[in-house]
Order: sequence, then C-alpha cells, then structure tokens
Amino acid sequence: MHVGFIGLGGMGQGMAANLVKAGHRVAVYNRTRGRSDPLAAAGASVAASPADAAKGDVVMTMVADDHALEAVCLGEQGVLAGLPRGAIHVSMSTISVALAERLATAHQEAGQVFLSAPVFGRPEAAAAAKLFVVAAGAADAIERCRPLFEAMGQRTFVVGDSPSAANVVKLSGNFLIATVIEGLSEAFALVRKSGLDSRMFLEVLTNTLFAAPIYKTYGGLIAEQKYEPPAFTMPLGLKDVRLALAAAEAARVPMPTASLIRDQLVSGIARGHGNLDWSALGRVAAENAGLQG
Amino acid sequence: MHVGFIGLGGMGQGMAANLVKAGHRVAVYNRTRGRSDPLAAAGASVAASPADAAKGDVVMTMVADDHALEAVCLGEQGVLAGLPRGAIHVSMSTISVALAERLATAHQEAGQVFLSAPVFGRPEAAAAAKLFVVAAGAADAIERCRPLFEAMGQRTFVVGDSPSAANVVKLSGNFLIATVIEGLSEAFALVRKSGLDSRMFLEVLTNTLFAAPIYKTYGGLIAEQKYEPPAFTMPLGLKDVRLALAAAEAARVPMPTASLIRDQLVSGIARGHGNLDWSALGRVAAENAGLQG
Amino acid sequence: MHVGFIGLGGMGQGMAANLVKAGHRVAVYNRTRGRSDPLAAAGASVAASPADAAKGDVVMTMVADDHALEAVCLGEQGVLAGLPRGAIHVSMSTISVALAERLATAHQEAGQVFLSAPVFGRPEAAAAAKLFVVAAGAADAIERCRPLFEAMGQRTFVVGDSPSAANVVKLSGNFLIATVIEGLSEAFALVRKSGLDSRMFLEVLTNTLFAAPIYKTYGGLIAEQKYEPPAFTMPLGLKDVRLALAAAEAARVPMPTASLIRDQLVSGIARGHGNLDWSALGRVAAENAGLQG
Amino acid sequence: MHVGFIGLGGMGQGMAANLVKAGHRVAVYNRTRGRSDPLAAAGASVAASPADAAKGDVVMTMVADDHALEAVCLGEQGVLAGLPRGAIHVSMSTISVALAERLATAHQEAGQVFLSAPVFGRPEAAAAAKLFVVAAGAADAIERCRPLFEAMGQRTFVVGDSPSAANVVKLSGNFLIATVIEGLSEAFALVRKSGLDSRMFLEVLTNTLFAAPIYKTYGGLIAEQKYEPPAFTMPLGLKDVRLALAAAEAARVPMPTASLIRDQLVSGIARGHGNLDWSALGRVAAENAGLQG
Repeated sequence: MHVGFIGLGGMGQGMAANLVKAGHRVAVYNRTRGRSDPLAAAGASVAASPADAAKGDVVMTMVADDHALEAVCLGEQGVLAGLPRGAIHVSMSTISVALAERLATAHQEAGQVFLSAPVFGRPEAAAAAKLFVVAAGAADAIERCRPLFEAMGQRTFVVGDSPSAANVVKLSGNFLIATVIEGLSEAFALVRKSGLDSRMFLEVLTNTLFAAPIYKTYGGLIAEQKYEPPAFTMPLGLKDVRLALAAAEAARVPMPTASLIRDQLVSGIARGHGNLDWSALGRVAAENAGLQG
Repeated sequence: MHVGFIGLGGMGQGMAANLVKAGHRVAVYNRTRGRSDPLAAAGASVAASPADAAKGDVVMTMVADDHALEAVCLGEQGVLAGLPRGAIHVSMSTISVALAERLATAHQEAGQVFLSAPVFGRPEAAAAAKLFVVAAGAADAIERCRPLFEAMGQRTFVVGDSPSAANVVKLSGNFLIATVIEGLSEAFALVRKSGLDSRMFLEVLTNTLFAAPIYKTYGGLIAEQKYEPPAFTMPLGLKDVRLALAAAEAARVPMPTASLIRDQLVSGIARGHGNLDWSALGRVAAENAGLQG
Repeated sequence: MHVGFIGLGGMGQGMAANLVKAGHRVAVYNRTRGRSDPLAAAGASVAASPADAAKGDVVMTMVADDHALEAVCLGEQGVLAGLPRGAIHVSMSTISVALAERLATAHQEAGQVFLSAPVFGRPEAAAAAKLFVVAAGAADAIERCRPLFEAMGQRTFVVGDSPSAANVVKLSGNFLIATVIEGLSEAFALVRKSGLDSRMFLEVLTNTLFAAPIYKTYGGLIAEQKYEPPAFTMPLGLKDVRLALAAAEAARVPMPTASLIRDQLVSGIARGHGNLDWSALGRVAAENAGLQG
Repeated sequence: MHVGFIGLGGMGQGMAANLVKAGHRVAVYNRTRGRSDPLAAAGASVAASPADAAKGDVVMTMVADDHALEAVCLGEQGVLAGLPRGAIHVSMSTISVALAERLATAHQEAGQVFLSAPVFGRPEAAAAAKLFVVAAGAADAIERCRPLFEAMGQRTFVVGDSPSAANVVKLSGNFLIATVIEGLSEAFALVRKSGLDSRMFLEVLTNTLFAAPIYKTYGGLIAEQKYEPPAFTMPLGLKDVRLALAAAEAARVPMPTASLIRDQLVSGIARGHGNLDWSALGRVAAENAGLQG
C-alpha cells in the first residue's frame, strides 16, 4: 500500500520502520527534518509537507497532542488538503475525544475517511511490532488498514464504528494505568512509614493477587524510587488524565479518582518533579506522608 | 501438632479441615455450635470455649473483625486465659493494626507468643489449600507454625518480626483491590455513557495491559452488573478500607484514594446496596453518572 | 463619556441602564435584538454590531462565556475591529484567565487598551447599582473608567496591573462560594440523617459563627430544598469551577476541593438536575446519603 | 445551684469562673491539681475526685476528648459513681456522637440525667461569658441548667431531646469551619502563584461576599502565613474532623470534603506542622503548589 506516516517521535520511528519492513511504500514526514534520515535509509521517501505525505491510500499520524495534530491537519499544506477523496486518515495519537469528533466531521465533509487507532505500548513495543492497536470507524476502512495495523502490532481490537470510541478506550486505559500507579504510591507510603521493606511488600503483591506486568513495572519503580530516566513524564500523564476528564465531563460522568490523580500530578509538577516519570506519583505520596521522596 | 482453631466461617471451615487432613490434632471452636459438626465428623475435637481450644501448642483465630477477636481472646474463657506459656496464638483474621499491637503486648506479658498471619484468598481457595499466608512475628515461632501454614496455603510470605507488619500488608493489599474496583467502576461508567460496549472494553483491557485475574474477575462483574450473590459485601469492604485508613492515620500517611473509596462505599450502603458485593462500587459510579445501576 | 455596552442579559440590562442613568452616552448591542428595547426607550442608542458599539471611548462587554466573548471580539464586525486606537475594552464577563491574557495581547497589538473588571453580585444588585467591581489593568485606564464602575457598583477594587489578575480574583471568589454550598450540603445531609431539624441547624449556624448573608442564602435554600427557580444553574457553576481549575492547572496549583465540587456538579447534571440552582449540590449530597432530594 | 465542674483547661477555666461569678456554689476538679488554684481563690471548692465533684445538682465536664471523658466518668471515683439519682451530667466537651449515646444510656440506667451541651467559642469567649451553647436532652433538665448556660454564654440553642443531637451540631459546625480554612487555603495558593497580593485578595473577599469574622480571622492568618502560636492545633482539628466522619459513617452519610480535609491535616502533621494552628492547612496547600509555606 502507499502509506504516509507523520510524526517520527519515539513511537512513530518504530511504527513507520515496521511499515517499511512489511513492504509498504512509505512516505514519512516530521516537523524537524533530521528524524526522517534513518527511515529514508531504510527505503522510505521523505515528504515535504503533511499534505505531501497524505497523497497515498492511507496517511497515519502519530504526534504529541491535539495541538500538534491540528497543526499537521489544517492549513494549505495539511493532511486535509492533501488527502485524496476516498483515502483514509488513521489518527494513532492520544488525542481528545472532541478533536477526534471534529476531524471525523471534517474528513467526511471532504469526502475522505477518518479512523482513530490509538495504541497501547511503549517505544520498545513499537520498535518490536508488539503494540496493541485499538481501532474504530467505518468497518471497511478498518479492514483496508488491517495489514498496516498487523505490521505494527501484535493484536488489533475493533471497538466501534464511531472513530472517537477508540479514543475513549485509549483514555480509559491510560486512566486505569494511572490508578495503578496512584494506588501503589499510597500503599507504599503506608508500608514504608510502618517500617516494612518496600521490596518485600512488592514481592508479596506480585506473587499473589497482582501478578501482572503493570504492577511489577510500576511497583518496582516506586519501591526503588527510580523515577529517572522517565519513560512517560508527569506532564504527559497529566495531559492524558485531563483528556479523560474532559471526555467524562462532556459525557456527564464524574470520575473522582481521575480528579484526584490530576491534582497529585499537578502537585508533583509544581514541586519540581515535572521531568520525572509519572510513577513519581510515588514521590508525591511519600512527601505527603513526610518522607523524603 | 496440637492445634486449636477458632472461627469456622466460610474461610475457617476450609482452613481447619486442611489442618485435620494434614494429620494435626485439631480442636475447633465456634461461637455458634452447629458449624463444628463437619469438622468433628472429619476427626477434629470440639472445644467448649476459646480457652479450651487454646490448650495446645498453637491456637489459630479466624473471625470476623476486631470485636469478634477481642471476644474470643479476653475473659475467663478466652484465648489469653487458656493458652499455655510459650504457646503461640496465630491471628489470621483481617483486623486492625492497633489490635494486633495490643494483643502482641498482652500475649508477651502472659509469656505467650503472638503472630499475625492474615491470608489472601476466597473461601474456595481456603477449601483448596490455595491461600497465600502473610506472616509476621518472632522468626522461630513462624518456623514452628510453617507446617500449619503449608497445610492451608500455596505459599507463605514472612514480612517482618513485628506481628502487625502482616496486618499492614493485608490491609494494603485489600486497599489495592479496592482501587482496582473503583478504577474499573469509573472507567466503565465513562465507556457506557460514551455508547461503547462494556464487554468489548473489558476484552481489550484484559488482553492488553490488565491481563490479571483480578481485572478479569471484577471487570466481569461490573461489565455484567452482576453484584449478587456477594462474595464480599460492601460493609465488609468498608470495614477493611476503614482499617487501612486508621493504620495510615496512626502512621501519619494520607491515603486520598482510600478516603474516596470509603465515601463511595458509604454512599452505596446508604443507597441500599449494602447486601451487594463490593464490586457494586460499579453501580455507585454508574448511578453518579445518571445511569441505571 | 461615550460608552458601548455589549451583552444585555440579566446582569447587562441593569448595568447598562445605570450607565444611561448616570448621564453617559451609551450605545448598546445584543445578539438577539429585542433585549435592546428598554434601553433604547431609556435613551441609549442601539448599535448595529459589536464594532459599531465599540466606536466610543470605552466599550464594556458582559456576555455568557469565553465563546460568546470571542464571538463579539473577533471578525470584521468585532470589538477589536471597531475600537479606536487608545480606547478601552472593559471585559466584565466571567471568563478564563487564558482568554483575558489573549485579549490583553491582541488589544495591545492593536494600540488599544484592555481591562478586566468582573463583578460580584446577582441581577438584582446589578439593577440597584450595588455590584462589587474587581478591576485590573493599566492604572490610568482604570481611573478613566472609574465613573463608569461607580455608576454600576457600590465599590471598586483594583487588584493589579495585569488584567487577568481580576479574573483570578473573580474565579477564586466563585470557587469559595462553591465551597460554602458544598460544605453546607454535606453538613445538612449529616444533620438530616441524624434526625435533626434542618431549619434549627441553620438557625444555630447563622446566629453563631456563620452570620454572613452567603450562609443564610445558601443554607436557607438547602434547608428548604428549594432549588427552583435557579438564580445560577448547575452548568453555570460547573463552568466557573472548571475555569478556576484551568487557571490553577496553568499556574501549577492543585485545588482538590475544586475538583471534588466539579465532580459533584457533573453528577448533579448527569442525574437530571441541570436546570436547578447550583445550591442543588445539596440534593446531590442528600441523594448520596440515601435521602430523597 | 450546687455545681461541679470538671476540666480546667483553657476553656474550662473561664467557664467555671463565670459560674462562680454568677453566685453558684461550685466544686472544681482537674486531673492536674495546680489549675484549681485561681478558682479556689475566687471561691470555688476543690473536689478530690470526679465523683466528689459530681455530688451536687449538676456536674459539668469540659475535657479534651472521648478518652479523657471516659476517664472522669468511669471507675469508682468517676462521675457515674458520684452523681446522685436525678442529678444531671452536662457534657460540654467536643466528643463523639457514639460516646454521647453510650453515656446517655449509662446515666439513664443509673437513674441520672445526661445532657450534651458543647459550645462554640475560643478561650477568650469562654472568659468573657460569650460562648454559644448548643444543648440537647430532656427539656426539663435543660431548663434547670439554663441559668448555668446563661452564666457562661451569650446564647443557648436547644437542638433536640436526644443528647447526641448537640454533638452532631457541634461536629458539623467544626467541619464547616474546616471547609472555610481549606477553601481559603486553596484560593490563596492560586492567588499567590498567579502573582497577586494575598492581603489585597483578602480585602476584596471580606468586603464583599465574605464579610464574616470567620473569613477575616482565618483569611488573615493564611494571608500572613502566621500559624503560630496555635489557637487550635492541627491534631485537634484532625480529631474533630475524624469525629464528624465517624458520626457520618454511622449515619451512612458520605462527606467527601471532610475526607479531603482529613487527608490534608494528616499530611500537615506528617510534614512536621503538628504544633501549628489548623489554619496551617494554608501551608499544606501552598507546599502542594510548590510554594514555601
């Protein structure tokens, strides 16, 4: 397939590379040019603009946030301007439900197709084609894109025919990760102040009820107080929790745990922990209990 | 070993039976007499009082709460009165850190040994000798009791030489279960009000980041809105969260998520859901979002 | 002075009328035309557009929200286009700190002056020229507008030379009103469920520590469960709390009480109370305690 | 009247003195003896025990907490043992609803009368006979005690015939004070981080919607960051909020704002602010926003 790929950050690099590897004809675009070089070396062409990248059958976008996605979609050199009628824009970024809905409308009005297909997984999973893809939108368009999803991920879930459904799932999933981190943070603060050994506590948890990688990963970071280097910083976590709260407010759903976590993240950033991994919610909880970090 | 076992509820029945099965000489006691019959049939002797049950090498208690444990420990016919010097009281109930500390002192003053060894697992796990035992107290006493723990559980964790350490671990573990339920409850409310299918959402979760039995179990109950019959009612959940908060307050640790869950449980009980499983936090979240249950 | 006044809702009607009464030459504008009639009858001229209303020395805007203010400010017929160089735009609406900052910049770039001067007070206070005006921006411009503020209010506070300072004060004040309502709501739920008489409780409060009009007003509404007709609906309350949270997040300030109130308002709207006064937080608290309304 | 008065702390000193001044025959008792001296000098007799102090028509207790009240009520030398049949015990301390209920029962079984009559006011108000008395219990007993209440306070409110009703009112009132402090704390954090002047903000608040002494007092302390010397320490505040939460839990009423404040107080104490006034919630909020104190 003739595919454009826009956004070559930590995630996008690996995803685009896997599309090239799978034999697709890939045109890449990144705002800052240097990031295209490894992909060009691997056989991708380098597009001059988002519109240029969007000239094929499908264009995929994987950018930082709503603002960045609007920047590549709108304007004379944007995706909306360049995408042929009948072609597909697959938005894979973690964006707001509201923007997904606006883009769905805009593409439809332009005779184009919009899909949401955010992913679960870290950069290493992206590089290893082990992502989980959560797709939503018109069923036939999803089927056309399935080979692309399969080139990038280990499994694809189709969660609805309204594109924003996939964004709701992605934001809810990230919210649940945040609840794991916050829950562990409070539990570790109690355990530490009660004089117990954090690693032993983690050992009990992850060998009994919480034998899941997510508890091992985040529990380990909090038990070791190892918040650097960040895999996902506190401001990024705050962005995602804020998007979940915005979607929930629009749907008239109170999410008190999300509100609480939002406040803890804001506090962590205010205290100067903005460059730490969002597992530094563990540091916020510890400090709130009078502990050093 | 000559072992007393006090408290033959859903958990205690299975635990005591496994002690008998392992060849120990077991004397059982339960406040209401009928519950001893199956154990007597299996070979246990029936004690006339807690003191009577405590006459051997070790007495284990598995009762509902602090109040019930104080009732079997204190008084002329209580455990403290009956237990020989040098013998061991193993408290396996989910009780407060404060009571564990008081009992540790009381037994020490009486020349006896006190261990805390609460367990993770449901009645089926108790019957199948699949419990996880979390033990704390004097190391040599724990070693003496190890054959008993092994008769009842699949694994024993030793978490400290102060008995109450085990209670902190147990309460923290139960708090973490509560965070899973509350997190799922809020996420499902958002997903439902956004028009998505709950079961599909659960499918995504439990096949990606949350592939743990606890997410499958509680996620399934909430997705199906199946809160009866209760495995663990809302008032029992409230009791445990309250004990975690009390331990945290004593240790000067704020646990805002525990506070939030406490309020949701109180609200659920106030709304008439007190006889439902504590996964009915899902109903509270749904009602708060204007949904029917 | 030659003054434009844009936005003739419940508040704006009274404010503009008081400007006319004070002898100023007033040009009024409202999106829906009929609302200008009483003012025209009183001597105001009716402007054909926001730009037309902005042709004098000062233009004041009093509209519903950010969106409405942007609608009257931008575009060919907007305030920015019509306001002469050196003339002043006084924004009196309850808007976001972010929009105040953007407008301050836009007016400055156009050689115009922007002031924020939101008010405390209900429509009756606006009609009676009893508002409190909270003004911020360039000191000399505030002095030029002082006769206008005095025509509308009982007192003017100058809170800084950056216009958005006044918006921070306004949003913080509204947040504090919300804390009064939520606090009373929870206290009344406890009092009612404890079998006490709500009016008697209110009597004690307002004759002892809380002898302030705000406690009398809101306490009376909650004690009487009189949430209609609304003076300020739940969605309006939600808007203001959301703006406070947005300002706080931008300034890196966690406001957990604001978050909590936000969730209660969202829940109230979700339950169908969106057309009630925001004192119906009292109903939300009562329902959460299992009471009828 | 022949009155006993037990508990001569900051509050009790002034209260007992005012009883003496009003011409009653007063027997005082305090655990630590020296505190009786000024009252003895003023004409009170000094009782040798709580039972001894309780020999008259009425005995009033004003002690620190549940524990202290139980200590003076129970035992051979306690109030219950010393109080004549038909005589009245007026509990004026801030105690739990549960203890008030237990004491009501115990006194009734002993043929005695129990009233709850907690007060609002600081030590200066106690000295000046300016307290507000909130009384509940049997109407005729309250009438008999009215001259005593009038000797100590500026006004007496009768809130029910079940003694614990007065404790619910007192705890709800203290909870509302706490909401004022926490609300101001969060608002001041926002205002400070937005670069505004705290005193100016307070000036606006207390001259507009919040023209009540309580806002002036606590707002002033927070604006000045003047948390010493404490009039009421954080642990005392925590005690009262905990009692409100316990009463609410027993009545099945969620009080999320009380839970939130509880956590802030616990955090403040954990951070080492336990010897500060409870208005140091302002420091907790400021620190959470990354500010110094």
